[in-house]
Amino acid sequence: METIAFIGLGNMGGPMALNLLNAKLSVKVYDLVDSLAKPLADAGATVCQDLQSVVEDADVVITMLPAGEHVRAVYLGSSDRQGLLTHIKQGTLIIDSSTIDPESARLVGDAAQERGIYFADAPVSGGVAGAKAGTLTFIVGGSDESFHKAQQVLQHMGKNIFHAGPTGSGQMGKICNNLMLGILMTGTCEALNLGIDNGLDPKVLSNIMLQSSGRNWALELYNPCPGVMENAPASNRYQPGFMSKLMLKDLGLGLEAATKSQSSVPMGALARNLYALHNMQGNEELDFSSLFEFYQSKANK
Amino acid sequence: METIAFIGLGNMGGPMALNLLNAKLSVKVYDLVDSLAKPLADAGATVCQDLQSVVEDADVVITMLPAGEHVRAVYLGSSDRQGLLTHIKQGTLIIDSSTIDPESARLVGDAAQERGIYFADAPVSGGVAGAKAGTLTFIVGGSDESFHKAQQVLQHMGKNIFHAGPTGSGQMGKICNNLMLGILMTGTCEALNLGIDNGLDPKVLSNIMLQSSGRNWALELYNPCPGVMENAPASNRYQPGFMSKLMLKDLGLGLEAATKSQSSVPMGALARNLYALHNMQGNEELDFSSLFEFYQSKANK
Amino acid sequence: METIAFIGLGNMGGPMALNLLNAKLSVKVYDLVDSLAKPLADAGATVCQDLQSVVEDADVVITMLPAGEHVRAVYLGSSDRQGLLTHIKQGTLIIDSSTIDPESARLVGDAAQERGIYFADAPVSGGVAGAKAGTLTFIVGGSDESFHKAQQVLQHMGKNIFHAGPTGSGQMGKICNNLMLGILMTGTCEALNLGIDNGLDPKVLSNIMLQSSGRNWALELYNPCPGVMENAPASNRYQPGFMSKLMLKDLGLGLEAATKSQSSVPMGALARNLYALHNMQGNEELDFSSLFEFYQSKANK
Amino acid sequence: METIAFIGLGNMGGPMALNLLNAKLSVKVYDLVDSLAKPLADAGATVCQDLQSVVEDADVVITMLPAGEHVRAVYLGSSDRQGLLTHIKQGTLIIDSSTIDPESARLVGDAAQERGIYFADAPVSGGVAGAKAGTLTFIVGGSDESFHKAQQVLQHMGKNIFHAGPTGSGQMGKICNNLMLGILMTGTCEALNLGIDNGLDPKVLSNIMLQSSGRNWALELYNPCPGVMENAPASNRYQPGFMSKLMLKDLGLGLEAATKSQSSVPMGALARNLYALHNMQGNEELDFSSLFEFYQSKANK
Repeated sequence: METIAFIGLGNMGGPMALNLLNAKLSVKVYDLVDSLAKPLADAGATVCQDLQSVVEDADVVITMLPAGEHVRAVYLGSSDRQGLLTHIKQGTLIIDSSTIDPESARLVGDAAQERGIYFADAPVSGGVAGAKAGTLTFIVGGSDESFHKAQQVLQHMGKNIFHAGPTGSGQMGKICNNLMLGILMTGTCEALNLGIDNGLDPKVLSNIMLQSSGRNWALELYNPCPGVMENAPASNRYQPGFMSKLMLKDLGLGLEAATKSQSSVPMGALARNLYALHNMQGNEELDFSSLFEFYQSKANK
Repeated sequence: METIAFIGLGNMGGPMALNLLNAKLSVKVYDLVDSLAKPLADAGATVCQDLQSVVEDADVVITMLPAGEHVRAVYLGSSDRQGLLTHIKQGTLIIDSSTIDPESARLVGDAAQERGIYFADAPVSGGVAGAKAGTLTFIVGGSDESFHKAQQVLQHMGKNIFHAGPTGSGQMGKICNNLMLGILMTGTCEALNLGIDNGLDPKVLSNIMLQSSGRNWALELYNPCPGVMENAPASNRYQPGFMSKLMLKDLGLGLEAATKSQSSVPMGALARNLYALHNMQGNEELDFSSLFEFYQSKANK
Repeated sequence: METIAFIGLGNMGGPMALNLLNAKLSVKVYDLVDSLAKPLADAGATVCQDLQSVVEDADVVITMLPAGEHVRAVYLGSSDRQGLLTHIKQGTLIIDSSTIDPESARLVGDAAQERGIYFADAPVSGGVAGAKAGTLTFIVGGSDESFHKAQQVLQHMGKNIFHAGPTGSGQMGKICNNLMLGILMTGTCEALNLGIDNGLDPKVLSNIMLQSSGRNWALELYNPCPGVMENAPASNRYQPGFMSKLMLKDLGLGLEAATKSQSSVPMGALARNLYALHNMQGNEELDFSSLFEFYQSKANK
Repeated sequence: METIAFIGLGNMGGPMALNLLNAKLSVKVYDLVDSLAKPLADAGATVCQDLQSVVEDADVVITMLPAGEHVRAVYLGSSDRQGLLTHIKQGTLIIDSSTIDPESARLVGDAAQERGIYFADAPVSGGVAGAKAGTLTFIVGGSDESFHKAQQVLQHMGKNIFHAGPTGSGQMGKICNNLMLGILMTGTCEALNLGIDNGLDPKVLSNIMLQSSGRNWALELYNPCPGVMENAPASNRYQPGFMSKLMLKDLGLGLEAATKSQSSVPMGALARNLYALHNMQGNEELDFSSLFEFYQSKANK
């Protein structure tokens, strides 16, 4: 039976690791913040005290970290510490499920490959709810072999598992999707607000657009106008869900990629900057559909 | 049996009137351009030589005209001609299916009501293909009574018939939907192009987004990247479909409405201006998904 | 000696009329709000009780009104009142200094010309301060003859008087200038805020840009960052000056003109929508340089 | 007498080094492309064959390189080569005049300081013409001591020398200025094109805006409409001047900085993306004022 090392036990990583345990897999865990490991220990995980010991003897290493610099530091090392790659045995599979820049993913992936270690970048979509329910979507980059190995593990944490292309493509696929999502949400807020300002009922307008060419994911599952959809964050004082600051981060990754490839992303760039303006007013921990309030006049709020 | 007067027999109006004839209704038709009436005459329509005679004895009057100024001129008159309202008998139902500014719709609707004439603004979505197939979507504004009367007629030309609210709401609903659509399409072009520029396969990326939070109408039915979707205009040299110049017009109506209601539409305004830039390069008669080419570098085209 | 009729005695019109009186000209005045005429009566103006009597025997008629619909209603009439053009004698010069859409200016100008009345559209720039000091800039549209006649009067209220072209060009010239101004101010707020967020001193940065290729009117005379320029509204709690709602109106006129001419104005449209978002938060009566606060994070404010 | 090492002899670096020679200073030069050193050798420079020998015994080291990665590689080293810092003697002054990200400048500056080497980041503005004429503007970051030392050398190559703040501030100041410039130029193209589309003469409109609140550097010195200003690149088929691809690069640096500081730069981001779209059509080597053509309809070009 395989042993899985799981590093990074936050809002997403915690429930993901729990689903591996629920699938009766052998799981070792580590997080800088000790207390985060507690619920996993209760569920049968082996809690480790440092990075090196968690990857020891692991057949699969999964990381769920905040940004590219953390992923590079953990695997490749930094000025004050050796990278984990030197401690991971040949033939191991690394799955990095963090959402980071594709360049960092490629750097780590290439270094892993040189050492005979499999690597897949596998960022997720689906939020905390999807992590808990085990219904996450994984967008995976890596060789065919890495992808097929990763699939065996990821299936316990998610529902849809896509192979986007070679190393880095998982991150790139997620970046494109979330650029699209940022545009969808911004546009949906804008269209609904325009209708309301002109006397339309947001439920009626939502229903019309849902069945017409304005249809999109936000209208279907995540209506940003309070009261239109009972279970959406908008109807629960914008409790997340997916926080505005994470949308800002993902759109920032989109702009960074576009700058590097000299691509044009005027709509994504505008959405990013509207989120930056919205977040600065103290809304960064609200659900990202709270952008709807940014569009509303003081009088209507 | 009711008599229907149909004014405006262009790309959309022609096939719409034909569907009424196919439903065995009694139809009188008129267009400034004589030749446009020919196919309808062949199908059994009574062709009239002027506006006044077409509405005479009609129980329902339908107009399908290019812009608000034409609708106002036809019904309310202009410096050199009396408006049709003075020739339409009390109790008649007017359905204006043109896509125009809500203010013009309200002006005509209010004047009709004063004379005891029912009025519904009922712009369509679904394009020429929908008009021919009788599968148009109608977004209707007007009183409950006007809406129910209109429904009886519209069902012969369309599939989804929405009641958006009082007079003018049909136009407003369409404006909001098409603002959303313009944003969706622009965003979809942008996300796909960003992926391609970074090595992703557009089919794979489209599939990923379709099953993730980037899902939207354009990805589902109208992929703008050539070769991804066999039946989309993109795979047929961007033959319309829905022309770029019509998207520019509709987004212009959105901006006009936003200016009047002091609403914020940064994303819609940007989409409008990207279409303006694209159209200026000689693309206004191409399908609106041709915006994809605007995003591509010369080298990739 | 010529008699000048002055209609519209608000923040701008009042001090403008006063400057005509200070130049010892014969001035008749009218405003819907009686009390606004008081200071002018004190300064020697003849106060009239209705529109018709104020233009009687006038050699020059000046209007300073809020929007195109008011200008059209006053000169061309409305459903319940005849237009002033029928009461103005041949050979009179009309100067409309309102800021309105060029189409309304052309409508009134053409109707005036048909009756042998001279017309010049002459919107102003320079704000209330310029109106009081008699240092306004006038951007004038009209025939050479109208322009030369208008110049004789305008010189008592302003310093720079430009002939922009035929009727309507005054409005168009002002629209272009204020679109530029809206972009300058938005960009200046953005560049300064970016520098501050990255540790630069706004005075030092302003000084650098002033002497480099970022130089512009806002940096020279109207720095939007509090404390940089002693006499700017920014250093006086954004007391206007030129109100945010007026900038929103002018940018709206720019978008309307662009929609009609199918021109692309992505930057102006974005500036308009940023002002709309800013104003909705309750800032519409603050000076337009208050947009700087829209860019600042809560923490820095 | 001091010896100056000059590394990077391209369009900018070449003429800058020549001005140092013209000032009778002792100059050693190096470039990867041998031929670029020829004109400087003719003017009296000592040509070196590698990086190490050019900095040997130099009192001042100046670099003029394309991007942050080159500057980091030269001074800090890369996987296959030691950095120059280990070869530069204590007390030497490094002036990096490249336009790069502030973070790279800070990395090099901090590493220099640790070794007792002075460092100033001193990007330039003024283009090739300014480099030749010795009228460049330098925006300098560094300690007071570094700034004063740098000033002694920079005065031979430029006219305005600003101290923007501590290390990295020179880059940040230039980034803010060029973000402003990108916005100015885009806005100026847009305002002029809107006027032309509506019948105004671009010379008349330019003159009006120059003397009104639309005044800015582009209108004053660099009018983007052909024929308005005889000496501007616009009147010389957009021969640079300052190439569109360099404006794209600088706006990209602005977005990168804004992403890191979580600042909002909607206008700068839009300008960046309009330049990306313009450049993709094959215009990247034209002067950056050629964006004017991007706004023009095919018919007007």
